[in-house]
Amino acid sequence: MATIISPKQFSPVEDAENIKKACQGWGTDEKAIISILGHRNLFQKKLIRLAFEEIYHEDLLQQLKCELSGDFQRAISLWTLDPADRDALLAYEALQKTTPDCRAIVEIACTGSPEDLLAVKRAYKFRYKRSLEEDLASCTSGDIRKLLVAVTSAYRYDGDEFDETVAHSEASVLHKEIHEKAFNHEEMIRILSTRSKAQLNATFNLYKDIHGRSITKGLLGGPSDDYFSALRTVVRCIRDPKKYYAKVLRTAINMPGTDEDALSRVIITRAEKDLKEIKELYLKRNNVSLDAAVGRDSSGDYKAFLLALLGAE
Amino acid sequence: MATIISPKQFSPVEDAENIKKACQGWGTDEKAIISILGHRNLFQKKLIRLAFEEIYHEDLLQQLKCELSGDFQRAISLWTLDPADRDALLAYEALQKTTPDCRAIVEIACTGSPEDLLAVKRAYKFRYKRSLEEDLASCTSGDIRKLLVAVTSAYRYDGDEFDETVAHSEASVLHKEIHEKAFNHEEMIRILSTRSKAQLNATFNLYKDIHGRSITKGLLGGPSDDYFSALRTVVRCIRDPKKYYAKVLRTAINMPGTDEDALSRVIITRAEKDLKEIKELYLKRNNVSLDAAVGRDSSGDYKAFLLALLGAE
Repeated sequence: MATIISPKQFSPVEDAENIKKACQGWGTDEKAIISILGHRNLFQKKLIRLAFEEIYHEDLLQQLKCELSGDFQRAISLWTLDPADRDALLAYEALQKTTPDCRAIVEIACTGSPEDLLAVKRAYKFRYKRSLEEDLASCTSGDIRKLLVAVTSAYRYDGDEFDETVAHSEASVLHKEIHEKAFNHEEMIRILSTRSKAQLNATFNLYKDIHGRSITKGLLGGPSDDYFSALRTVVRCIRDPKKYYAKVLRTAINMPGTDEDALSRVIITRAEKDLKEIKELYLKRNNVSLDAAVGRDSSGDYKAFLLALLGAE
Repeated sequence: MATIISPKQFSPVEDAENIKKACQGWGTDEKAIISILGHRNLFQKKLIRLAFEEIYHEDLLQQLKCELSGDFQRAISLWTLDPADRDALLAYEALQKTTPDCRAIVEIACTGSPEDLLAVKRAYKFRYKRSLEEDLASCTSGDIRKLLVAVTSAYRYDGDEFDETVAHSEASVLHKEIHEKAFNHEEMIRILSTRSKAQLNATFNLYKDIHGRSITKGLLGGPSDDYFSALRTVVRCIRDPKKYYAKVLRTAINMPGTDEDALSRVIITRAEKDLKEIKELYLKRNNVSLDAAVGRDSSGDYKAFLLALLGAE
């Protein structure tokens, strides 16, 4: 469930006017901006952008970029974008880093539905005039490239049916490749990138039944290289995205200096989806609420904005 | 351009009734069925199916399957299906063969637009409750699997822009892999499956400029195994689909006994697209018109139906 609290009744025109007002004169009224955009859902934000464009002949995002700065500006901009467009931007940024950020890519490829992924790929083509797969393939290499291109290209079946026999045989294949620390990961990549999530979850369950420990534990025993780490991310994003995200938040917050990129990414991309459950998992595992942890680890407008998205009182 | 001749004005209800009439009583009136369905376009066929369902509470395709037989029945059924659904069926059938028919798969993956391919993958999931990529990966193996899964998964950029520098460097990469008969075809598969067609055509042109012969000629020098043959099909479907289809027809007709599967597939899938140009290329290369060649090589209702699709007088 979503965490953001948005009003049932609202006026896009009034919101657009109030944001404009907050941007005018000496200094910017960040609080006003947070009180509006931090409490509007997907559809409402879209209408505000349209109204803003209509009234001022200016793009709301451009305006916000000029007025705000730092982590706060980045978070507000990401939040204001349409989800597919936002993911396209996140994927692009992840690829531009010196070492591409596999987590952001795998999250996009493996946590949503096939149609969600497709919408991101469409948005990416529209933004960058190249396909996501093509840029991925240029920016990465070796086994990790094979894995990332495969999961991003996938257009999985998304029904609930699965084949028990396939689950049995592929659980063995996965175990064999992990156990033998195989150099050639072809079968593993094929299975993880083409099978439906229902099928994969059946396979993962059988893996645990037969071998006595989960596949994610099995992968932990592998070499600690980037490929195995990306592989674990794929499995975790398919198996239990909420638990995965709670862990990403924990790592981001516990890192010396806080990983703001990851913190913003998870809160912003999940606030309208399942952030409520992620918060519950976080509390259970860390003995501290996510609101309190974010409140302690961030500051200023950035903190106020994240707390608004978290639905903190 | 299309070859089929369809009337501007038509009544789906009348057509449905006349087809029903042709199916009733002793024997079936195949000529009547050809005179109707052989002269209706995509949209008209859809309306006839709807009208038939509405009036008789029966699926037109089921009815035709009961009444007709052999190559003629298969051709009429394929023709009556929606293009994406038809391609999904063709892909499925291609994979069910003892040796999967790579040509049918590559045609679907590489001759249409990214959206066409997507529609086929959607139809496939709807029909078979699995993804096309997943079945492809189960039915093939080795390098050919890598190639087919990659081109089928692709969601290419489809704009006209291309990068000259990329074309230069990737033309060299392709030449190196072909020339050295590399065992590892990773780069070649990456380039052919992720780059846009505009980019690939620029790369193929530079390949020819620099190395003095086309990439398809270059590939001919490779080992005569299935992988290289599939690779050539990919390049030819991207570079010049019409020329490719003309060649498939030539091979199908010149084969002892005729390859009816290929003959039907090309005529049916292209009749509303570019069969006119394919016919011109055929005539130019073979000194005989495609109509005459088909007339000589097939017979009965099957022949009459193909000639109707070919727009023969």
